[in-house]
Formats: sequence, C-alpha cells, structure tokens
Amino acid sequence: MTGAAGSSRRRLALVLLSGGLDSTAVAALARRTGYAVSAVTVHYGQAHRREIDSAQRVAQALDLQHRVVDVAFFRDLAWYSALTHPERFPLPADRTPEAMAEAVPVSYVPLRNTFFLTLGAALLESEALHALEVEGVAPGTLEATLFIAANAIDYSGYPDCRPEYYTAMAEALRLGSKLGTQYGVPLRIETPLIRLSKGEIVRLAVEAGAPLGLTYSCYEGGERPCGRCDSCGLRAKGFAEAGIPDPALAPA
Amino acid sequence: MTGAAGSSRRRLALVLLSGGLDSTAVAALARRTGYAVSAVTVHYGQAHRREIDSAQRVAQALDLQHRVVDVAFFRDLAWYSALTHPERFPLPADRTPEAMAEAVPVSYVPLRNTFFLTLGAALLESEALHALEVEGVAPGTLEATLFIAANAIDYSGYPDCRPEYYTAMAEALRLGSKLGTQYGVPLRIETPLIRLSKGEIVRLAVEAGAPLGLTYSCYEGGERPCGRCDSCGLRAKGFAEAGIPDPALAPA
Repeated sequence: MTGAAGSSRRRLALVLLSGGLDSTAVAALARRTGYAVSAVTVHYGQAHRREIDSAQRVAQALDLQHRVVDVAFFRDLAWYSALTHPERFPLPADRTPEAMAEAVPVSYVPLRNTFFLTLGAALLESEALHALEVEGVAPGTLEATLFIAANAIDYSGYPDCRPEYYTAMAEALRLGSKLGTQYGVPLRIETPLIRLSKGEIVRLAVEAGAPLGLTYSCYEGGERPCGRCDSCGLRAKGFAEAGIPDPALAPA
Repeated sequence: MTGAAGSSRRRLALVLLSGGLDSTAVAALARRTGYAVSAVTVHYGQAHRREIDSAQRVAQALDLQHRVVDVAFFRDLAWYSALTHPERFPLPADRTPEAMAEAVPVSYVPLRNTFFLTLGAALLESEALHALEVEGVAPGTLEATLFIAANAIDYSGYPDCRPEYYTAMAEALRLGSKLGTQYGVPLRIETPLIRLSKGEIVRLAVEAGAPLGLTYSCYEGGERPCGRCDSCGLRAKGFAEAGIPDPALAPA
C-alpha cells in the first residue's frame, strides 16, 4: 500500500472479478498501473463453483483484497432473462454474431452491470471516505476507480457494455455519493477492454502478467473446459488471434 | 390491472417501501394516479422487524404486489457509515438541522439509494420486458416508473436526496437497460416528495388515502413509538404542521 497521509497519491481501485479471462486481464492491468486493488466477485447463481474458485486463485496470485458476495436474491428481481431463468426463457439455438449485434439478446440480465457497479462503488466509496476522514489523505491526492471488463465488440448487443452507458453511470455515482459531492473526488469507471478484440485482450493480459492459467471461462462447469460452448469458442478465437497457446489447456 | 395488449396504457410502477410515513404516502399516491404498483422493501439490517411488518401491512392495505429483499451483505460493502456500523462510527450528539445541511452526515450510507433504485429497476424492467415481449403491449403505450420517497428538505445533506442525482440516475438506467435502448421506454424516477415539508407530506398522504395508522417511523423499534428519537420528532412536527392527529398514536 502506497500513499501515507498527504505524502503521495493514494490510488484506490476496485475490480469486478468473475474469474474469467477478461476480468483477470483487467485486474492485472490495474495492479500493473499502480492501483491498490480490491476485487469483488458477485455470485447470483449464474456461475459454477469452479468460476468462483478461479476468481479466488486469481485474487491470491495478484495479491488482491477479495470478497465473494452471494446475491442469489437478484435472480428473483432480474427474472426476465435466459441467464437467470433458462427454464422459462431458453437461449435460441442460432445466435450468430450479427443477430447478437442487432437486438439485445435474451441472455441480457436486467440492470446487471448497474447492480455490479453499485455494489463495487459502495465498497470503494467506503474505502475512499475512510482514507479521507480517518487516515487524513487529502482529496486532491486521492483517486477512486472502478474497473469492469465490459466489451462492446463481442457483446455489442448489450446496452450495459457500451461506452455511453459508463459515462452516464459515472455521473450518477458522482452526484449520488459523498465522495463526489462533498470532496469532489469522482468514482471513475474504467473499461480498458471496451473496444478490444478477443485477440487484443489476450495479448494485453499476457503483457500485464495476468495469471491466465488460473482463469476459467467454460459455461459447462466441468473440471476441464468443454471446448464447445460459446464461451470456450470465444476464448479459443482470442488465443488463436494472439498466436499464444491457452495456458489453461496445458496438460495437467 | 389495466391495459390489455394494445388497448390502453400499461402504467407500471415500482415503489421502494420502507413502511414509514413518507414511502407509504408515495405508494398511495402512485396507486391513486393509476399505476399498477409493485413494492419492494429492502432490508439490510438497519430496520427493526416492526418496520418490515409495517411495510407488509401497508402493502396489503393498498393491494400492492410486495417483496421483502434481505440484503444483509450490503452492510459489509457500505461499511463506512454510522448506520451500518454504529459501533465504529457513532452518530454525533448535536445534529442540528443546520449541521445536517452543511456537510454530508455520518449517517450517510455509501450509494444506498443507488443500490435501492437498481434493485427496484431490475424488477421493474423485468415486468416491463415481459409486458412488451410476451404480452404484446406496444412500447408507445407502456410506462415504467420507479417511485422513491427522497426528500431534499429534511435530508438536504444527503447527495442521493437531491434532484440532480435522480436526473443522472434515470439517464444511467435508460442507457444501461434493454427497455431504454431497444424500446425507447425510459425507466423514469419519480420523487414526489422531494421539495415538500413534513407537514405537506402528511397532508398529501391523507389526501391520497395512505394508511398512515399502519406506518412506523421510530428508530427504537419498540411496540409504541418512543416519541423522543429524531424520527419520532420529525413525524410529530409533520402532523403538527398539517394540523392532523397522528393515527399511529391513537389509543390501542
């Protein structure tokens, strides 16, 4: 931890960490660029145990403060979605990239990224207010940044993966927080992957020293990735484009 | 429920209902003005059981769809607050109205209203998307409105009780939702009490037919209101200004 009271910048970051490739790349990037990083893994029943385990191993490898938050109740609020209620709203079989870009897919979960960012912001604002009011850090030397692995290329159909949404959300967090209104320190939102292809993400992750061998992306939740689901397919495409072998597929 | 497919307007509302005077007034107002109203009571460990019971009785009296959501985990995220951790951050003894207006009070809970609105919005968007995509309601005839009992007069120190915050938050919800971006139906936020005095709120509540005798406002959580805490004091002031006896204080 850098930044004793008044002596230097205190750069606080909070990363929304799923345990997959993208959010692990973002966490490594935030560490590499000098932030004191906390990570939150939000679990609403969508993730397999294996994905949570990956998030924990990644957090340990990157030496992050890490919490797993169980928000199973969120499924019952954001109920109109193929991800929260697949038995009621099945995923269509033919999800071409073009079809995904045209309309918001049925896998859209109502306000999910807004919910994730708000949870992260509540923790990050708590840390920042403590730094200001208890530790005596000067507002002009404090940064508070939320990092989220949103991507507008492969997930262009999702409204909450677009840059204009993040601009609006950051403004709401600024005006709705003590940090933003009383101290003039905005809760910034960084989306470093938002315009990158999967291949570019893989290259960035490797450069940032992300522990990609610990990440897990498969929808199936088996011990080894299935290699057939959408998520495995997208991941394989990324490593192929980057010309790098996937370390998670190395023989055990 | 009004508004069969295409025949008339479908006006969906979601009210954040604490069981206190203000949110009960808002719920009654939403019902009175023609909305099909759902209510959500968010419980993060701050409320006494009696307050939740009040919310349930109010919801029943107004014939609202009602859910109580237990989000105890939120205390551990929004930890820097006299409300979530009174043992670490005690409320100062001398909270004059002037002092409360000057700086954000220590009872501020990081991003609480943003969190509440996001939970409500996830449920409201689910209902709205179902109306559009399953029931065949036309986007031009659908309204989706979140009601919150924020007040910038008695709680002027809180950033998330100010009109400009709600404008920014509504824009984030519009840009971050399928409802707003694909269908052009905004998730509106209504704050009907935001500029009213407590006396005006009491009068509005009575006019709207709010079941004020069922509401509970006391911080102490006893069977009868203590009559001494800040909340009891503010409530008594409101009824006195309105010239109306408090029905919750009627002899049992």
